[in-house]
Amino acid sequence: MEGDGLCRFGILTASDRASSGDYEDLSGPAIEEFLEDAISSLWETVRIIVPDEKTQIENELRDLVDNKKCSVILTTGGTGPAPRDVSPEATEAICDRILPGFGEQMRNISLKYVPTAILSRQIAGIRGECLIINLPGSPRSIREILDELFSAVPYCVDLIGGPYITTHPEVINSFRPAHARRE
Amino acid sequence: MEGDGLCRFGILTASDRASSGDYEDLSGPAIEEFLEDAISSLWETVRIIVPDEKTQIENELRDLVDNKKCSVILTTGGTGPAPRDVSPEATEAICDRILPGFGEQMRNISLKYVPTAILSRQIAGIRGECLIINLPGSPRSIREILDELFSAVPYCVDLIGGPYITTHPEVINSFRPAHARRE
Amino acid sequence: MEGDGLCRFGILTASDRASSGDYEDLSGPAIEEFLEDAISSLWETVRIIVPDEKTQIENELRDLVDNKKCSVILTTGGTGPAPRDVSPEATEAICDRILPGFGEQMRNISLKYVPTAILSRQIAGIRGECLIINLPGSPRSIREILDELFSAVPYCVDLIGGPYITTHPEVINSFRPAHARRE
Repeated sequence: MEGDGLCRFGILTASDRASSGDYEDLSGPAIEEFLEDAISSLWETVRIIVPDEKTQIENELRDLVDNKKCSVILTTGGTGPAPRDVSPEATEAICDRILPGFGEQMRNISLKYVPTAILSRQIAGIRGECLIINLPGSPRSIREILDELFSAVPYCVDLIGGPYITTHPEVINSFRPAHARRE
Repeated sequence: MEGDGLCRFGILTASDRASSGDYEDLSGPAIEEFLEDAISSLWETVRIIVPDEKTQIENELRDLVDNKKCSVILTTGGTGPAPRDVSPEATEAICDRILPGFGEQMRNISLKYVPTAILSRQIAGIRGECLIINLPGSPRSIREILDELFSAVPYCVDLIGGPYITTHPEVINSFRPAHARRE
Repeated sequence: MEGDGLCRFGILTASDRASSGDYEDLSGPAIEEFLEDAISSLWETVRIIVPDEKTQIENELRDLVDNKKCSVILTTGGTGPAPRDVSPEATEAICDRILPGFGEQMRNISLKYVPTAILSRQIAGIRGECLIINLPGSPRSIREILDELFSAVPYCVDLIGGPYITTHPEVINSFRPAHARRE
């Protein structure tokens, strides 16, 4: 799997309304569009839509890592302070370790656009060889965050044993220390 | 209670010296003065002064939420690294969930004024339908933080089921996404 | 110990390669060089090199605090997302409390230089009367962080009962509130 350099991205939309069909999922496609614009190495996606139920999100995340062998999972929705928002709790429950810098920087990025970014509880963590990142629900916020944050993702995936991801430098200038660059 | 739009604010001063009467509590009044300047909807306060004892702070916070029906509690004092500073621990112990963005942003705001802001361990969290925020002990720091951070508080209170708070826009330009605005 | 104002600094290098002798430890000396440049009061160091083993790091940290009576410990290495990186876990395990502002600010400082600073999980905390800070492995990053962050360290050590540290103001302009200054 790592051999051929193919990276499988899980995209999980947590939304009561999108999962019941009351509402079109716009966030999952926004993430996929970002990947199309940014990634120059081989990739594919597995997309899931689930209601805002902690156990269900946990089960889907475990399946995306352990069975579907995703190297990166981007979740969207369920990161706010409302009682039905449980994506960070589900993520923390199935991760081996948390990377606190992601939550901090995602909030700092969004704070440049809206003061209520402070309310987001989004986190990122590692399960096995997979990096899992919580994104907010709004397609605009998703893009603002990924445009600024994704440059650190390829090197993180290297460090946890995943495939070598490359990006289109005019979209994402991904960074690796000199000793980790392939050419 | 939410019907009439009245918001009850709990103000809890944690201070050994203020609670024993050795020292006049200046922080509680500083918070109340901010509320007078900022809030344009109906509000009232419940003020409490307690020593820096974790169990006692926990009990008072529970009482302010569960019995006194506060929608927002602002604590002051007890956020530093000294052994008697226990306000964050007491807050975490009685909250259902933590909102990490508040602690991060409060430290970032204070860092613009003093490098020792890094030492503050202040947090914010939710218990039931109440938002609880730890503020530092100094009246000047309290005001610096509230002036910048309070714009996200009314929408947070909306999301957890509390009353609709409005502010004087020349003091606090509180932000709600378009779909959450009443007019 | 506090009486004479001598401050003992523990410097712990966590590195599989440096501890086996495959690689010269450059990080420990970089920290010692910073202390030489910055500290004007009496100080001495205890230096330790250990492999990236959680239990071993924990044991050495406990010994540096409880037996060697260090007032500040600076660790280097083992803060990334790779499976062998365990310094933050070991630090958290032996601390009485965490000071979240340090991790946040250290990442913010390093983010000015490299986007992958977001991957660092470094933390700081207190055990007894000792402040423990995780630094990254690269000598350049260590210096970038200490140059900006150390100004808050002397006052923190005051607050937890340690010796009165002073610094050369042209290197580190250490900050204490007016009431805490000795002259």
